[in-house]
Amino acid sequence: MAVAGEELYHFAAELYPICRSITGSGVRQTLAAIRQRIPLDIVEVPSGTPVFDWTVPKEWNIRNAYIKSPDGDCVIEFQRSNLHVLNYSVPVHATMPLSELKPHLFTLPDKPDWIPYRTTYYQESWGFCLPHRQMLSLPEGEYEVHIDSTLEDGHLTYGECFLPGRTTDEVLFSCHVCHPSLANDNLSGVAVATFLAQSLAGLNLRYSYRFLFIPGTIGAITWLARNREHVGRIRHGLVLTCLGDTGGFHYKKSRRANAEIDHVVSHVLQRGKEPSDILEFSPYGYDERQYCSPGFDLPVGCLMRTVWNSFPQYHTSADNLDLIQPDALAASLRVSMAVVDVLENNRRYCNQNPYCEPQLGRRGLYRSTGGNTIDEEITARLWVLNLSDGQHSLLDIADRSGLSFQTICDAVEPLSQAGLLTVIPN
Amino acid sequence: MAVAGEELYHFAAELYPICRSITGSGVRQTLAAIRQRIPLDIVEVPSGTPVFDWTVPKEWNIRNAYIKSPDGDCVIEFQRSNLHVLNYSVPVHATMPLSELKPHLFTLPDKPDWIPYRTTYYQESWGFCLPHRQMLSLPEGEYEVHIDSTLEDGHLTYGECFLPGRTTDEVLFSCHVCHPSLANDNLSGVAVATFLAQSLAGLNLRYSYRFLFIPGTIGAITWLARNREHVGRIRHGLVLTCLGDTGGFHYKKSRRANAEIDHVVSHVLQRGKEPSDILEFSPYGYDERQYCSPGFDLPVGCLMRTVWNSFPQYHTSADNLDLIQPDALAASLRVSMAVVDVLENNRRYCNQNPYCEPQLGRRGLYRSTGGNTIDEEITARLWVLNLSDGQHSLLDIADRSGLSFQTICDAVEPLSQAGLLTVIPN
Amino acid sequence: MAVAGEELYHFAAELYPICRSITGSGVRQTLAAIRQRIPLDIVEVPSGTPVFDWTVPKEWNIRNAYIKSPDGDCVIEFQRSNLHVLNYSVPVHATMPLSELKPHLFTLPDKPDWIPYRTTYYQESWGFCLPHRQMLSLPEGEYEVHIDSTLEDGHLTYGECFLPGRTTDEVLFSCHVCHPSLANDNLSGVAVATFLAQSLAGLNLRYSYRFLFIPGTIGAITWLARNREHVGRIRHGLVLTCLGDTGGFHYKKSRRANAEIDHVVSHVLQRGKEPSDILEFSPYGYDERQYCSPGFDLPVGCLMRTVWNSFPQYHTSADNLDLIQPDALAASLRVSMAVVDVLENNRRYCNQNPYCEPQLGRRGLYRSTGGNTIDEEITARLWVLNLSDGQHSLLDIADRSGLSFQTICDAVEPLSQAGLLTVIPN
Repeated sequence: MAVAGEELYHFAAELYPICRSITGSGVRQTLAAIRQRIPLDIVEVPSGTPVFDWTVPKEWNIRNAYIKSPDGDCVIEFQRSNLHVLNYSVPVHATMPLSELKPHLFTLPDKPDWIPYRTTYYQESWGFCLPHRQMLSLPEGEYEVHIDSTLEDGHLTYGECFLPGRTTDEVLFSCHVCHPSLANDNLSGVAVATFLAQSLAGLNLRYSYRFLFIPGTIGAITWLARNREHVGRIRHGLVLTCLGDTGGFHYKKSRRANAEIDHVVSHVLQRGKEPSDILEFSPYGYDERQYCSPGFDLPVGCLMRTVWNSFPQYHTSADNLDLIQPDALAASLRVSMAVVDVLENNRRYCNQNPYCEPQLGRRGLYRSTGGNTIDEEITARLWVLNLSDGQHSLLDIADRSGLSFQTICDAVEPLSQAGLLTVIPN
Repeated sequence: MAVAGEELYHFAAELYPICRSITGSGVRQTLAAIRQRIPLDIVEVPSGTPVFDWTVPKEWNIRNAYIKSPDGDCVIEFQRSNLHVLNYSVPVHATMPLSELKPHLFTLPDKPDWIPYRTTYYQESWGFCLPHRQMLSLPEGEYEVHIDSTLEDGHLTYGECFLPGRTTDEVLFSCHVCHPSLANDNLSGVAVATFLAQSLAGLNLRYSYRFLFIPGTIGAITWLARNREHVGRIRHGLVLTCLGDTGGFHYKKSRRANAEIDHVVSHVLQRGKEPSDILEFSPYGYDERQYCSPGFDLPVGCLMRTVWNSFPQYHTSADNLDLIQPDALAASLRVSMAVVDVLENNRRYCNQNPYCEPQLGRRGLYRSTGGNTIDEEITARLWVLNLSDGQHSLLDIADRSGLSFQTICDAVEPLSQAGLLTVIPN
Repeated sequence: MAVAGEELYHFAAELYPICRSITGSGVRQTLAAIRQRIPLDIVEVPSGTPVFDWTVPKEWNIRNAYIKSPDGDCVIEFQRSNLHVLNYSVPVHATMPLSELKPHLFTLPDKPDWIPYRTTYYQESWGFCLPHRQMLSLPEGEYEVHIDSTLEDGHLTYGECFLPGRTTDEVLFSCHVCHPSLANDNLSGVAVATFLAQSLAGLNLRYSYRFLFIPGTIGAITWLARNREHVGRIRHGLVLTCLGDTGGFHYKKSRRANAEIDHVVSHVLQRGKEPSDILEFSPYGYDERQYCSPGFDLPVGCLMRTVWNSFPQYHTSADNLDLIQPDALAASLRVSMAVVDVLENNRRYCNQNPYCEPQLGRRGLYRSTGGNTIDEEITARLWVLNLSDGQHSLLDIADRSGLSFQTICDAVEPLSQAGLLTVIPN
């Protein structure tokens, strides 16, 4: 895998200016850009479609928005930052005194130079977001407010990339594509997912891989509602988000807490070079909320660098292209690839010579002169033989032996060649 | 609950002068005082009644006792402290030299100013307890000893307060009423149990509550022997003792170690403001010894402040009304009430919308503008929905979420009102 | 047991000069010396016999070996140390320049004064082992090398001491007898095993005891191949090795990790006076590798003092009679005896009075005057009664109570005498 961090970064930068929301043309533009790189089915679900306890909302589109001050200056312009508009604002064109405007203005008093990101998906309303310092400087007087948006029956749009493998068991990667100009949350996740799919496409893989590029919450719910019969195929899954900042990795476990994906990601991170931390499941965060709802309880965790809401730029205009770094994106992709690698290879084997050790020496799998020590390569072979009783996966063996998954995995080929191991189908 | 610590303290003080033992009029007087406050069945079991491996002993009553020194002074008087008499002493009236008296005298050499508390329930004997310093000052010569007691067929007496609830499942509270003038052990427990019963009487409660005021060991054994067929109703239980001193709380787990009562009391104490410690079960201590004998193995723990035998005043005349404090008694009652509160409300629920999250927003159960954070109230709702799969009790959810039981509990009402939760009958 | 450490030491010293290998007269001499002390069946298995994945090798015997320098001096003589010859060297008699000789010389560059111990069991070859310093001083020139050995069809020899007990359930002790002049590894183990068998012989024991004195690896494999049908009788087992040095004890758990032998040895060591450490199982080390292969998975751990390969003298001429100490050997024997003692006595009992505590006082099993404390003896009785529900062994009770196994065990006799306990047959 020779994808440079620069390529990931440039893809995130390409998507950055688009004004995305949970529906509308911003999502379609984003999916079109992804489809330049990987095969992608684009699904359109009509407004009003019931999806479990929810209903697919009206489609929102926006062309322009501004606020003009009493002296006619454009003090707020959508064209300068799409965060300025309360996402899903209904159209408005009116003139009103500052006192009447103020309830529609959102700011961050403790981060006075940043524009907050706010939404009003499920309550028809309008508003503007702006730096607190700017709001304080607004003079009294009559303001012209204009939001040239539409909120009408249309569609919710999502993208799905399916890479068939040798089995119908699936690994799910899911990321949200509903945030406007926010880089770490979640263009970083979109970029990593796209390049991961690109890397896996065309490989001969054990699992089938499904990548979802969906609006947060309502998109995951919509996908689950439409695929309810098939989710049993999902053996492992990861939500990818906030993967571009330079903080250490965080893995939030699935609701099951001891699913194979939980073991795999923990092993990969703990063996990795970067600092990392494993977090328990909680029912808030990203779309693992839906995948891990009790009726589904899918083995889906969430891979992040810095956890949402624990970096100050979260959901503000400061989550921009300066916050994410090519090297950080590249390392996130490497971790994701390593997770895939362990999942692909984490089989159970059966020692064909379970009574006493087989004689490795005559098969050239041991040292020839008896002496002091055996090296890690031979140690790994002994561990694999000893624990390949059908109960232990290679990752179990790695964990119990203290050796890396790779070292354990490397023992399989020569032992299998020697007829000492057979894989257990699953 | 507005019971002041003063009321608890005054009740303990009222009971303090009575000379209690495992049988006799002292127990009856004590139960009569308790019956002033709560409904109480008083049960009289005849001497000689077999109770498992034991036999209800003869009834002991005492009117007076003294030792007169060679010069005719009353050096020991029962009227000054009922601890002076070896509890269950047979009658004696004799004159004897000091050397013959001495084997009948009990002192504490390392606590030379305190009278020890000693008993001879199951071996007919007599004796006096006195400060070690006083014993050392006794001159040689002839002493008149007099114990005006009776040990005759009669009854063992205990009190039982039953508060019926909506179900026949029971919560047991047990305290011993056999100690003479000892305040912390166990008038503190008697007072807390009495006021707890008083507080619960007349409430509409899920569980039935049974309070036992019994002589230690033989009383518990007698009660269990008479109620052997019904103990299966006891779902949770607590022995209450040593609850008046100012030390931190201690909870000794049931033999099962992972019973619901163990979880509940641990949660309440760990969330409380006072220092507390959780102790493993051991087969000595108070009447949990009997409730947790292997044939019964009831889920009964023991709530204390300072553990018996780890405060220096334990079983001495210094366990007096100075050792216990109104505030400490009141806090002990509050903890007991909090335990009842958790037990009453610790139900399992079933999420009626288990596939994906239900849309809380349209039910007014979420914030309306999407932004940074969600507060603890909403967090609790998400946890309750996520884990209400029939497997997790509210306390399980509290423990896994790190939220308080109360916070989790508060989520139930609005979610149930919205039709999102149903209680699982049990 | 009054065996002095001196006796153990002298036995090890008696065996030290013998040139042992995995076959041959050295093993026979060693077994003959053991048979002076304990009953021993000596088993001869022909070369060429298939044993699982292995074949019993040809028998190796050696009479003499030397290297003569260009000026005719004997620079290496087998008679001075049997480690000088690469164990299992084929015969050779030749003259060759130093450059041709060197690939046949084995040294330890970082321990330049010690002779390494090397073997070539499964690859026909020849060689000499010598101090690195000596090798560096060898002048160029022609060397005469002579190894007067034979490698021919013959037998693999092992010894087996079986001490029948009251049941056919067996405890296995295994030690290897294939190392030439190496004291800690493993004459210490051989000596301890021999004296342990001697101590147990003639006792009335619950278990049958089987002691194996076998060549490492191939001997264990051969024994297992010949006794495959009977290994189910092995309820507990220990490999004994490296028991003469003065380091702390180490116990390496069985593959099962929670077998009774693992609990027992851990308890004995943790209660002992010497430092000790418990190690997880790994599939390299001594013959536990074979006993714990997945097809057998026997409950066999390994008792050591300093772990093989973690003392610098391991597999060198410095593992000599100075490395082992009489006191260390004696303490190792005591620990082994203590393990046997716990195994013999670790029964499950059934409390015959499970409803409430039985009245110990009237049976003279309690103190007579009620007061402050109960001593450890009575505490142990209460624990045994409380947990003797058929589920808990005495060792389980010792662990849960924090009392020693001996203290718990001492409670059984008086309680059984009083009719309060019956043993559960197993």
